[in-house]
Amino acid sequence: MEARKPIDPSYSELATALFEHIRWLSHDGPGVTRPSYSDVETGTLAYLEKAANADGLETSHDAAGNLWMTVPGADTGRPRVMTGSHVDSVPKGGNYDGLAGVVAGLVCGVRMRREGTVPGRSFTTIALRGEESAWFGKPYLGSAALLGRLTEQDLSLKHRDTGYPLMFYMREAGADPQRLARGEPLIDLASIAAYLELHIEQGPILEGSGYPLGVVTGIRGNFRHRAVRCIGTTGHSGAVPKRMRQDAVFAVADLLSRIEEAWDEWLAQGHDLVVTTGMIQTNAATHAPSVIPGEATFSLEARSESRETLDGFRDAVVAECEAIGNARGVRFEFDQPVFSAPAMMDARLVEQLVNICERSGLRYIRVPSGAGHDAALFANAGIPAGMIFVRNQHGSHNPDEGMLIEDFMMATDVLYQAAIAI
Amino acid sequence: MEARKPIDPSYSELATALFEHIRWLSHDGPGVTRPSYSDVETGTLAYLEKAANADGLETSHDAAGNLWMTVPGADTGRPRVMTGSHVDSVPKGGNYDGLAGVVAGLVCGVRMRREGTVPGRSFTTIALRGEESAWFGKPYLGSAALLGRLTEQDLSLKHRDTGYPLMFYMREAGADPQRLARGEPLIDLASIAAYLELHIEQGPILEGSGYPLGVVTGIRGNFRHRAVRCIGTTGHSGAVPKRMRQDAVFAVADLLSRIEEAWDEWLAQGHDLVVTTGMIQTNAATHAPSVIPGEATFSLEARSESRETLDGFRDAVVAECEAIGNARGVRFEFDQPVFSAPAMMDARLVEQLVNICERSGLRYIRVPSGAGHDAALFANAGIPAGMIFVRNQHGSHNPDEGMLIEDFMMATDVLYQAAIAI
Repeated sequence: MEARKPIDPSYSELATALFEHIRWLSHDGPGVTRPSYSDVETGTLAYLEKAANADGLETSHDAAGNLWMTVPGADTGRPRVMTGSHVDSVPKGGNYDGLAGVVAGLVCGVRMRREGTVPGRSFTTIALRGEESAWFGKPYLGSAALLGRLTEQDLSLKHRDTGYPLMFYMREAGADPQRLARGEPLIDLASIAAYLELHIEQGPILEGSGYPLGVVTGIRGNFRHRAVRCIGTTGHSGAVPKRMRQDAVFAVADLLSRIEEAWDEWLAQGHDLVVTTGMIQTNAATHAPSVIPGEATFSLEARSESRETLDGFRDAVVAECEAIGNARGVRFEFDQPVFSAPAMMDARLVEQLVNICERSGLRYIRVPSGAGHDAALFANAGIPAGMIFVRNQHGSHNPDEGMLIEDFMMATDVLYQAAIAI
Repeated sequence: MEARKPIDPSYSELATALFEHIRWLSHDGPGVTRPSYSDVETGTLAYLEKAANADGLETSHDAAGNLWMTVPGADTGRPRVMTGSHVDSVPKGGNYDGLAGVVAGLVCGVRMRREGTVPGRSFTTIALRGEESAWFGKPYLGSAALLGRLTEQDLSLKHRDTGYPLMFYMREAGADPQRLARGEPLIDLASIAAYLELHIEQGPILEGSGYPLGVVTGIRGNFRHRAVRCIGTTGHSGAVPKRMRQDAVFAVADLLSRIEEAWDEWLAQGHDLVVTTGMIQTNAATHAPSVIPGEATFSLEARSESRETLDGFRDAVVAECEAIGNARGVRFEFDQPVFSAPAMMDARLVEQLVNICERSGLRYIRVPSGAGHDAALFANAGIPAGMIFVRNQHGSHNPDEGMLIEDFMMATDVLYQAAIAI
């Protein structure tokens, strides 16, 4: 372990200036709002592009409207190293979720230029659009479009506030939805040697364990039901004895308790798994304290690094529903689930990032990513991907999201070293 | 057991005519709507009064607007026998819930007049107003007013649709809210020897077991929380491991499962108890499938014939909430509960009704009443009370409510015999 070289403080100042100007561009009450494929997102990209050009980086836009900021390598014929993340945010979200990865890449590029370092491979920072599902109901729009994974159906997804389709917003933002509708990658996938993404951790693991950095091992996939309905029979809450009831709420309570018990067992067996029922409701049009509930609807989401775990757990849930249905005289109706495939980070990139941390004496742990990231799409498109997490103080998707600039600069230095070495 | 005397079929025809005319007066789509203290309720009473007068019954109205229809007894100085029920209904309810008891009493009175039977005690059928809580949020308005149990606060209760206070509707219906506000009984309670009420059963017990009649042993009381809140911590559904979650929905599911388990134990120990969570919901303003729920709100109602059981079970629930709160890092906030006292039917009246059924060869069982009835207020005011249930085919508080006229006439004959014998 050799002592880490101190980094010129001007890069930290640059990062802070970029963060604060973009915070000002997109401030909304206590947090920031940068809607997917909005003018605010476009303005953010324009500001980043100006900053990149000021230090001599080459910039361009792809047909999905993403911004590319490149330092040409010594051999521009070799597959490039790409880094980046997204610039959009959830409504009234935090400033660092996504943006940190773009600023980190840009700072690395500027550092190469200012220090006169020409990387072996071209080094591109991509500022992606539309990662947050909050706006059009689907995440990863910018990276999916880049990788040829957007469908015509996706292009018709409606904006949560205006109801206008995604393609309208894309066209307005300078993208080419007609080309995206073809479902072909906008680039030769083989021309990207690696995709690296720096991101704040969206969970409490690093902060809780006191480590500033995390090297991500994999990104959890998930299955998600927005609305599972349990159907029983309504009745007078006083006049029907227990044995004659088909109470939908007690049935769902029973189901969720069994699901939680199974979850504990799967964890004990070493599986990676989290399970969430974020929404539950009886029928507001007919429910009352003195009516036996004949209906209860709930969401069900499970996430895991392993597709097998997701499939196996879902089978277990369906089996429990059947058992409860038989025992209680209720039935469960499942809506069409949405699946997101898990993604493993490239083993060699993980080791490379770990080695850089070790060599530089940085305190890190290996962590799975519970949240989804653009990196998962690159990985599942066959591009070696790696991620560095920066601890964050107050969770994610809220205005209180926090990140120490010292932690951020450590992670940015890891990114820089990796970009040079690949 | 002696053979039952056949009853003149004209009484069955009279009952049918009364039911059908009132159904026509108050029909509303497939069901009937007779709001508490409404013109429809008033019109129903006027029609009943005309029918009573046609057969020489004496009629009058008390200061609560209830209709009295009396056959004077041989000794009018003795405490009278009172029977009756309510004429109002829930919105789009069934025709027999309440009305059956009024028609039964009126048919008994008409039978006394037509057969020239002068009862030992005066026999009054009371047609009560405002029993359904659907309209002003509080049940038993007519009987509570009669018994001096209405408060000034109650008189200001707002109508669910118009927002106008109960006292406006009462004045319009010919009642005297100023007098009711004094909170004194409108009659000398000692002047009522017994209160008998015929009612359709609002549960499935008689229908399920094949018995047309039930002799009610007691009326369940209840405690009711409209909104218990479980407060946890929101978080990213993918990024927070299980041990670091304070998930409000899993906490409530655990609580309800424990409550159901306790309920089974209390039943096994012979307690009378039903428990209902008719409403549950996560916070619709902030919930999402991929957000760990930080809040869940639910109603909780328990009913029992025994006050001790209600109090004991409520203590058990509170203890479970504390245990779950400690184990899971959530907390439960209880709103102010509403209590209704249980009421026992008068033991001598129960035996009298049972003996009449036995003597007449009628198939009956003894049943508790899970639903509340005006009879509970009379019983808790110290007036000996008894109830006869008639089986009903499709549950209660809905347009499909059903009752066989043969069953109804059997129960009416039991009422008649009891009224003569007391």
